Amino acid sequence: MLMNILKNKLLLLFFCTMIVVTVNAQDSNNSKSVEAKIESIISSLTIEEKVAMCHAQSKFSTPGVERLGIPELWMSDGPHGVRGEINWDNWGYAGWTNDSITAFPALTCLAATFNPNLSKDYGISIGEEARYRKKEVLLGPGVNIYRSPLNGRNFEYMGEDPFLASKMVVPYIQGVQQNGVAACVKHYALNNQELWRGHINVEVSDRALHEIYLPAFKAAVEEGKVWSIMGSYNQFRGQFCGHNNILLNTILKKDWNFDGVVISDWGGVHDTKQAALNGLDIEMGTGTDGLTSSTKNAYDSYYLADPFLKLLKSGEIKEEVVNDKVRRILRLMFRTNMNPNRPFGRMNNQEHIDVARKIAGEGIVLLKNESSFFPVNASKKITIAVIGENATKSMTVGGGSSELKAKTEISPLEGLKKRYKNATIIHAMGYASGPSAYDRVIPSGLDENKLKQEAIEAASKADMVLFFGGLNKNHLQDCEGSDRKEYKLPFGQDELLNEILKVNPNTGVVLISGNAVEMPWISKVKALMQAWYLGSVAGDAIADVISGDVNPSGKLPFSFPKKLSDNAAHSFGELSYPGDSINQYYKEDILVGYRWFDTKKIKPLFAFGEGKSYTTFELSKLDTDKKEYAKNEAILISGNVSNTGNRDGSEVVQVYIGKLNSKVKRAEKELKGFQKIAVKKGSTAAVSISIDVNSLSFYDESISNWNLEKGDYLIYVGNSSNTISKKIKITIK
Amino acid sequence: MLMNILKNKLLLLFFCTMIVVTVNAQDSNNSKSVEAKIESIISSLTIEEKVAMCHAQSKFSTPGVERLGIPELWMSDGPHGVRGEINWDNWGYAGWTNDSITAFPALTCLAATFNPNLSKDYGISIGEEARYRKKEVLLGPGVNIYRSPLNGRNFEYMGEDPFLASKMVVPYIQGVQQNGVAACVKHYALNNQELWRGHINVEVSDRALHEIYLPAFKAAVEEGKVWSIMGSYNQFRGQFCGHNNILLNTILKKDWNFDGVVISDWGGVHDTKQAALNGLDIEMGTGTDGLTSSTKNAYDSYYLADPFLKLLKSGEIKEEVVNDKVRRILRLMFRTNMNPNRPFGRMNNQEHIDVARKIAGEGIVLLKNESSFFPVNASKKITIAVIGENATKSMTVGGGSSELKAKTEISPLEGLKKRYKNATIIHAMGYASGPSAYDRVIPSGLDENKLKQEAIEAASKADMVLFFGGLNKNHLQDCEGSDRKEYKLPFGQDELLNEILKVNPNTGVVLISGNAVEMPWISKVKALMQAWYLGSVAGDAIADVISGDVNPSGKLPFSFPKKLSDNAAHSFGELSYPGDSINQYYKEDILVGYRWFDTKKIKPLFAFGEGKSYTTFELSKLDTDKKEYAKNEAILISGNVSNTGNRDGSEVVQVYIGKLNSKVKRAEKELKGFQKIAVKKGSTAAVSISIDVNSLSFYDESISNWNLEKGDYLIYVGNSSNTISKKIKITIK
Repeated sequence: MLMNILKNKLLLLFFCTMIVVTVNAQDSNNSKSVEAKIESIISSLTIEEKVAMCHAQSKFSTPGVERLGIPELWMSDGPHGVRGEINWDNWGYAGWTNDSITAFPALTCLAATFNPNLSKDYGISIGEEARYRKKEVLLGPGVNIYRSPLNGRNFEYMGEDPFLASKMVVPYIQGVQQNGVAACVKHYALNNQELWRGHINVEVSDRALHEIYLPAFKAAVEEGKVWSIMGSYNQFRGQFCGHNNILLNTILKKDWNFDGVVISDWGGVHDTKQAALNGLDIEMGTGTDGLTSSTKNAYDSYYLADPFLKLLKSGEIKEEVVNDKVRRILRLMFRTNMNPNRPFGRMNNQEHIDVARKIAGEGIVLLKNESSFFPVNASKKITIAVIGENATKSMTVGGGSSELKAKTEISPLEGLKKRYKNATIIHAMGYASGPSAYDRVIPSGLDENKLKQEAIEAASKADMVLFFGGLNKNHLQDCEGSDRKEYKLPFGQDELLNEILKVNPNTGVVLISGNAVEMPWISKVKALMQAWYLGSVAGDAIADVISGDVNPSGKLPFSFPKKLSDNAAHSFGELSYPGDSINQYYKEDILVGYRWFDTKKIKPLFAFGEGKSYTTFELSKLDTDKKEYAKNEAILISGNVSNTGNRDGSEVVQVYIGKLNSKVKRAEKELKGFQKIAVKKGSTAAVSISIDVNSLSFYDESISNWNLEKGDYLIYVGNSSNTISKKIKITIK
Repeated sequence: MLMNILKNKLLLLFFCTMIVVTVNAQDSNNSKSVEAKIESIISSLTIEEKVAMCHAQSKFSTPGVERLGIPELWMSDGPHGVRGEINWDNWGYAGWTNDSITAFPALTCLAATFNPNLSKDYGISIGEEARYRKKEVLLGPGVNIYRSPLNGRNFEYMGEDPFLASKMVVPYIQGVQQNGVAACVKHYALNNQELWRGHINVEVSDRALHEIYLPAFKAAVEEGKVWSIMGSYNQFRGQFCGHNNILLNTILKKDWNFDGVVISDWGGVHDTKQAALNGLDIEMGTGTDGLTSSTKNAYDSYYLADPFLKLLKSGEIKEEVVNDKVRRILRLMFRTNMNPNRPFGRMNNQEHIDVARKIAGEGIVLLKNESSFFPVNASKKITIAVIGENATKSMTVGGGSSELKAKTEISPLEGLKKRYKNATIIHAMGYASGPSAYDRVIPSGLDENKLKQEAIEAASKADMVLFFGGLNKNHLQDCEGSDRKEYKLPFGQDELLNEILKVNPNTGVVLISGNAVEMPWISKVKALMQAWYLGSVAGDAIADVISGDVNPSGKLPFSFPKKLSDNAAHSFGELSYPGDSINQYYKEDILVGYRWFDTKKIKPLFAFGEGKSYTTFELSKLDTDKKEYAKNEAILISGNVSNTGNRDGSEVVQVYIGKLNSKVKRAEKELKGFQKIAVKKGSTAAVSISIDVNSLSFYDESISNWNLEKGDYLIYVGNSSNTISKKIKITIK
């Protein structure tokens, strides 16, 4: 007995020391030593412990190995702020009061800034909040490509262009991860609609897959070094993306050398063997609400739990399969909660609020501004009618898993009232969306006609009307789980706006939405501002831009078609969008977004990259450093940006490139470079943009690889996809 | 705006850097640098932030400063294992499944080991579990002195002797805290009964206070360097102990130089000014269940919340008052969650189970063993009747805040069945306590007479009877919140035992309790083992001792009186115990426990320090190194311990000292030293115990200080307070 006690004492010492040394010696530059430690840990785990690490123990956590002090992993939605605490095993909120956070602008807004530096600030800030909230994995960012304006979750993503999304996602990830918190880029892949997302099978060409739908994920992995990725709900070529051999094993883990963890979307796993063998590492969210199962622990019935264990024990699946998963999970731990040097994080600090406001201000897109309707001088004693439900509606609640408990949320009306002390602001709701349904249920006490009459009356009394409309975060609007049912504005807004315009044509529209909408009234309104979902300081940021405190510089990250059928995905009928409920075919292939409009010569309502300023810019002296380039070289485009107006401002110089006389189908042009540059009024600034020649390659299905076509290319330099200042022909030798 | 952005960026950098540097540079040897950092943080906090840190934000947490990344503090009951997760703001369990832990033996058992090394192992182990569970503060250990056998919470404490409790509490604290988890020694002070604990005012002499009730707390602070302490519910000299000027300001913080945090017991605060000024640092548990208050956040109405803030803002209370509290809280953080070098902890590992079993085995006290009833040879094919509810009843649930979600709990019956494969074990419940009440409600389907008859039948068929009785963790038993109502065994056990003895006199009793009980049947039973509440491996440890795998070496940490009125506190009538509901007077003064029995020549049923072995020991050659000593010298007592029996075993050599012809009232003798020593059968081991001469001082109320009386002292060396092998006279010059 005494010997046993002694042995146990030694073991105790051994294990204590092991873990402490393991962790304290951790050094991100010393990955070899970490890998050795990981192997050493794996060799001391039982098969049951390994399997347990591969699936959830609660709604948002996975177990560690408690006997060895290997910690649990805690995850949280979402991409725009760290979600409130959820109950252990049901979706109810846990009722904590320490989980109110900074709501950052939704990612469409971030993309609209065309400013990767802000993406870094965004990542650092939200990562700090996740760290303070003790999360190891932040379930974001999302980089699914904007394919249809009906997709209920577009607001969470970074628009329609793979290059823009790539450039924006990388610094976000780097920012999050410098806090010792893993980003989890999602939803990999082809989760481009919410309708039938749980089962729809996407058929898409290899070329569109690699050129359009994967580049942002690839950049996240190869440049952002993201530590985790989330498999999407839908199927691709007949296999669920959560355990899709092509996507996970071949592309992600083999071709891209991803060394992190593949996490399923919640409930996105459907088969044990596929989950085990096709590259999934952690299964989350398989239905166990309330642990109603008669088994002791319903999590044991997960696909990657007891059924997986059984196959491992029978030898049908080799132990190396689970070892690989555990290796990745432990690697994630050494990067997060087993890294003693990670900072502590912080939350709701002024700096985060400032970052949110800065991104919101830079992301708002001014799309129309007749007679300099904006900015509205804040010193004037005018009467402003603020009309529309979106002037006051919270946009941090709803929307699905990205719903937030924001510590503060300044509505547009509040923001304007704070900024416009001299003006008389009258407010009318105008329309009501009802509590949550698409089919309007007007809240009791509200009468639709009365709301309209109040709005018209307010409009008629005012010097100007600011109409705050758009979509919201309700079900069947900009919300996870379903798509919008129509392209037009909901809740009778078009009709209301027409009535308002009759009594007061001096009307500007501020659209709060994460999606494009139909605008039958566009020619009649004086101005239009696209203001997204801006989070905690929405109203302040909107007031910043309306007042001119901030000169707008946002650019559309996706095209606004005039009508839905102008959109590529919708041009091919139901089999293209939304599919027949079993399959859908991405018939537009690579011609997504502006690639479609450009190539098919369809004029959009507003084009990708479009966005006005309160000042004017002129691009001049635009040229390339050479006219002929070889593979592996870089094309340097330089020129001047002159601010020819009366305000300091920022412009986004955009470089698109198209292949002339390509042997394959090509878009007329594709974004290959951009630079946002601040120019003081009356000044000129130099801009220079470098583009790798190799990035002009197309994905050649005949060789299953990228192929750089030699010959002539046309370089388009402008400040929007439809405003090109200069075309330059170059040749790739 | 750009300047502002730049400024914010710099601030961001500044703060990030500050926190990181602050923490990474933390070095426990460099307390000056930590103190400088603390002052720097305090200077950057708002008064609101400071006040927020001084009170709860939920049932078991206090807020940090989220904008600066100063983390929250999370606390957990309890002293014998880390309690299950509780809801944010009500006492319901949160339904987590990652909070099942190792239940360690209750502290009476730990005290009964008389083995400080095991106390260290206990502390390390429970500290590791607390750390793995992400707790910064473990609400234990408890060192209230055992004054009455009716006190419902005695089982959580370390017995009746201040010296024993002091020696045992120090290594526990050190063990917990080496994990970067604060121990919180409790309940400071004089919370020696549960009845009326919320308001009873204790009147006790300064001498009894300092000699009996405070030494273990003092050792916790001065030797254990404990990082936090919990104020008790009751009053002392008219002031609640949670904000008692004498206890907290004068004694704890001034005289003992305590630099940690005083935390109120949950709901133990009653006055803002007293809480602010009398030494409390953190207010916890003031009633807010479910946040039913109409205020936004009911925690704002805590005494140390808005009312405190108001007094600070009005200047009625100086800001230095809150600064001192925050300074202590930040110091605690630098020792716990702001110490990046703290280990990760671990849970439910074999080493913890082994520690629990070892402590349980060493803590079980063999009190009677006629005809070598124990050990029971496990190889024999005998029939053993295991009778009594406590053979199967869970003792980790119930009991109040020390209730646990044990990952495993081996009942005595299970433990015996595992060990006694050759024996026929028949089991009868014998009696039933009902689900939770003192007044028995026999569970439906159980008939009291039938239970008794089954037990008698089982006993009559068996070669031997093992009766598992005692108390349990139900309300009005060994349970927080109330005291027992009578000294005798509950649920008709005495009657049952008498019936069993009639049919089978070959009966041994195993008492599961944390308290002494009356034993009218003691002369008739063959053997008696006091087996406490032993936690996860209770049944294994009991089987270890019953089978002889472990030779018992536990000693009683408190006296068992024959009848209640023999107990000192009960000798003075109701004003002494339990008081008149307003006041109580500790009329026995310093004569607590064996001090009373010895001095008053009352023979206890079992004496403090008593406990048998399966072998026999002889103490010989006992002597002191000198006969005359001066102040500041040490008395060295040495001698031999011979194992004269047939088994290896351990003996506890105990040294008591009494003053001869004292000028003040003294106990006949007081424990001043002990040593547990393992001796192989047939061997002799040397023992040497050193006692500081200064520890012979009495607390002299006339000078409010310790006073070392010169003159003759008698040293009693033995293996129990009532079995003295040698008396040695020495003189203090």
